[in-house]
Amino acid sequence: MIYLTRKAEFSASHYYHNPNFTPEENHRIFGKCNNPNGHGHNYTLEVTVKGEVDSRSGFVVDLKQLKETMHFEVLDALDHRFLNKEVPEFRTLIPTTENLAISIWQRLKPKLKTAQLHRVRVYETADLFVDFYGEDSQDSE
Amino acid sequence: MIYLTRKAEFSASHYYHNPNFTPEENHRIFGKCNNPNGHGHNYTLEVTVKGEVDSRSGFVVDLKQLKETMHFEVLDALDHRFLNKEVPEFRTLIPTTENLAISIWQRLKPKLKTAQLHRVRVYETADLFVDFYGEDSQDSE
Amino acid sequence: MIYLTRKAEFSASHYYHNPNFTPEENHRIFGKCNNPNGHGHNYTLEVTVKGEVDSRSGFVVDLKQLKETMHFEVLDALDHRFLNKEVPEFRTLIPTTENLAISIWQRLKPKLKTAQLHRVRVYETADLFVDFYGEDSQDSE
Amino acid sequence: MIYLTRKAEFSASHYYHNPNFTPEENHRIFGKCNNPNGHGHNYTLEVTVKGEVDSRSGFVVDLKQLKETMHFEVLDALDHRFLNKEVPEFRTLIPTTENLAISIWQRLKPKLKTAQLHRVRVYETADLFVDFYGEDSQDSE
Amino acid sequence: MIYLTRKAEFSASHYYHNPNFTPEENHRIFGKCNNPNGHGHNYTLEVTVKGEVDSRSGFVVDLKQLKETMHFEVLDALDHRFLNKEVPEFRTLIPTTENLAISIWQRLKPKLKTAQLHRVRVYETADLFVDFYGEDSQDSE
Amino acid sequence: MIYLTRKAEFSASHYYHNPNFTPEENHRIFGKCNNPNGHGHNYTLEVTVKGEVDSRSGFVVDLKQLKETMHFEVLDALDHRFLNKEVPEFRTLIPTTENLAISIWQRLKPKLKTAQLHRVRVYETADLFVDFYGEDSQDSE
Repeated sequence: MIYLTRKAEFSASHYYHNPNFTPEENHRIFGKCNNPNGHGHNYTLEVTVKGEVDSRSGFVVDLKQLKETMHFEVLDALDHRFLNKEVPEFRTLIPTTENLAISIWQRLKPKLKTAQLHRVRVYETADLFVDFYGEDSQDSE
Repeated sequence: MIYLTRKAEFSASHYYHNPNFTPEENHRIFGKCNNPNGHGHNYTLEVTVKGEVDSRSGFVVDLKQLKETMHFEVLDALDHRFLNKEVPEFRTLIPTTENLAISIWQRLKPKLKTAQLHRVRVYETADLFVDFYGEDSQDSE
Repeated sequence: MIYLTRKAEFSASHYYHNPNFTPEENHRIFGKCNNPNGHGHNYTLEVTVKGEVDSRSGFVVDLKQLKETMHFEVLDALDHRFLNKEVPEFRTLIPTTENLAISIWQRLKPKLKTAQLHRVRVYETADLFVDFYGEDSQDSE
Repeated sequence: MIYLTRKAEFSASHYYHNPNFTPEENHRIFGKCNNPNGHGHNYTLEVTVKGEVDSRSGFVVDLKQLKETMHFEVLDALDHRFLNKEVPEFRTLIPTTENLAISIWQRLKPKLKTAQLHRVRVYETADLFVDFYGEDSQDSE
Repeated sequence: MIYLTRKAEFSASHYYHNPNFTPEENHRIFGKCNNPNGHGHNYTLEVTVKGEVDSRSGFVVDLKQLKETMHFEVLDALDHRFLNKEVPEFRTLIPTTENLAISIWQRLKPKLKTAQLHRVRVYETADLFVDFYGEDSQDSE
Repeated sequence: MIYLTRKAEFSASHYYHNPNFTPEENHRIFGKCNNPNGHGHNYTLEVTVKGEVDSRSGFVVDLKQLKETMHFEVLDALDHRFLNKEVPEFRTLIPTTENLAISIWQRLKPKLKTAQLHRVRVYETADLFVDFYGEDSQDSE
């Protein structure tokens, strides 16, 4: 079993707001992230897949396929977008880094064929990142 | 003469659009940056000042003052903002990295007392940055 | 279950010395880290918490609380300090990166309320870091 | 149980080719990595060991020994080499990042005495890395 | 006058050898870089152009054109190549980082139209880089 | 004319204090850097030399000599030291990043033979660095 991780970047904007909160609650809980005009980030995405090494190619996964899947399923949908307005799941879901990692997992999981999705890591800034291992992962790493 | 550089980061969103261009021109020239909903970046700002070292303190500039000036004049105005909508100069000026560097220079220049502003560098992403040395700088890096 | 990591930096000095070792042993085992005047590092701290995402906020943890806890419990105690002289546990414990990670875990663990502390990572330099998952963690990364 | 990771870098060249593939298959599967003249990378190696902290030294592993083992067993063999031609296992094995991580594990495992090898991570570029936890590791990160 | 810099990466292999040196001289001057099988690097290229900001677009240079010029003139020629064997100028010229920076300048200079080439920076590793400002630059950074 | 830069790192501790200041002045001007026990940093040093490329070697400077000069003249003197106590010039001079850059210039300048010293850059942290081009440099970066 070997783990391979590929990084990619995308730039998007978002804001945090819960319509069920009062304005005071939204301001207290979300601070300046509550600004409805949005603000943005250069997100860094790390996708980790795991599997056995194919003895003929030496690869655990076809790197070109992995790159294309990341582009078609994630980057094309999120890059240069206002997440709250233009990405369907974030019309109702707050686009925190946590929810972004879960959303990216759900976009990638059904599309990866040869290797198994192990982890989605999303950096919002250099100082803050989130890891998701799938809904049914046991409590590991 | 010695040069001191301090970094800071801010997150903002923007889009590129010239109302005098046709939609086709806006699309051709600005590509996906033309999306009016905006997209965002973690900008990195580097401010370089120059001067003589004060023999009593060993400093070319009061670091606390420099940090505060950067916060009050730049970060408070730009961080977590949609530049086109919320920053006055970008209501008419296109918020490219070039114009952002010039705007930051103009915000900082009159506020720096002890040391002289030498350069403003703005990274839009890790792979793209702009340097500005002032309107009346001769052609030198 | 989702994991969120926040980074912070602090600058401190330290030296390595065991009073029960002979001078030769101290020198052989600790090399130039045995210099009693101390030397220093820009430490990078990564604190990882885990938990369920709160469906109302989209957060696994209140980021502002996490940041404040890291500041009050760790940075205020260690930043700009000579660890051996000014931090109580390192009067007797050698302030290696290993012991620093354990100490930071012990400082943070009782103070984190909403999310569970998962990992403390401490970088002494860019090329050396230590991970601690708690005293009673099973052998898992 | 504590985990300590040390980084090192080496520069090597390689190419990907399976003599049992047709030229078309080699080209389709390996793309420009199939160029027999080779191309190169600055590889970054992270070696993680785990163990109990020695209460006398505060160390989980003798850092100098770990550094020397990494140099003698890995860097001396791989640095400034054409992997396919000069490193015995890659005369037959394709030197992908996956196989490189496994090879480095096998080189280090028998030589580490005081602490236990936990993980070998190899970055081929900043955007692609592989983790290996040993042949008999259960499926855990 | 404003300066814009764009980064790109390429992976190549090379070795250092002067046929007019004796084997002893080649070994003494070039050390392990003299290995004729070659070794490789992930080179990072930074291209800086300068000019006035176009008031209609806010750009000093068409970023898409700059990116394409860097790809067609530099990356397509050097990426995944053995420089000594596959890049014409390095059949006779030793492919040091210095000569690589000069060669890239000469490849880019005649192809850049709207903005003026100011500097080519080439990183061979994170710890070593070279800057070239053109043959006829006065002695200025 | 070509410019070559080599990086190195060292870890040291220091504090800021002027015996001619009152305790209040020392505290106000130097803040927590005034702690006499010292605190420390992982300093990053960048040394830039300039010259013509030697057509026989392709080098502007003998890299091995440059590395050795940096080690003997700078790293051996500063690494793992308490600057105020153990480095002669800092018994009287305050070891700010500014003075450190000047001191390193003075240590290196007389020892570099084949290429000319152009710039010394010292990073105290990732967010703060100083450049020095020599006492008699005209006002140019």
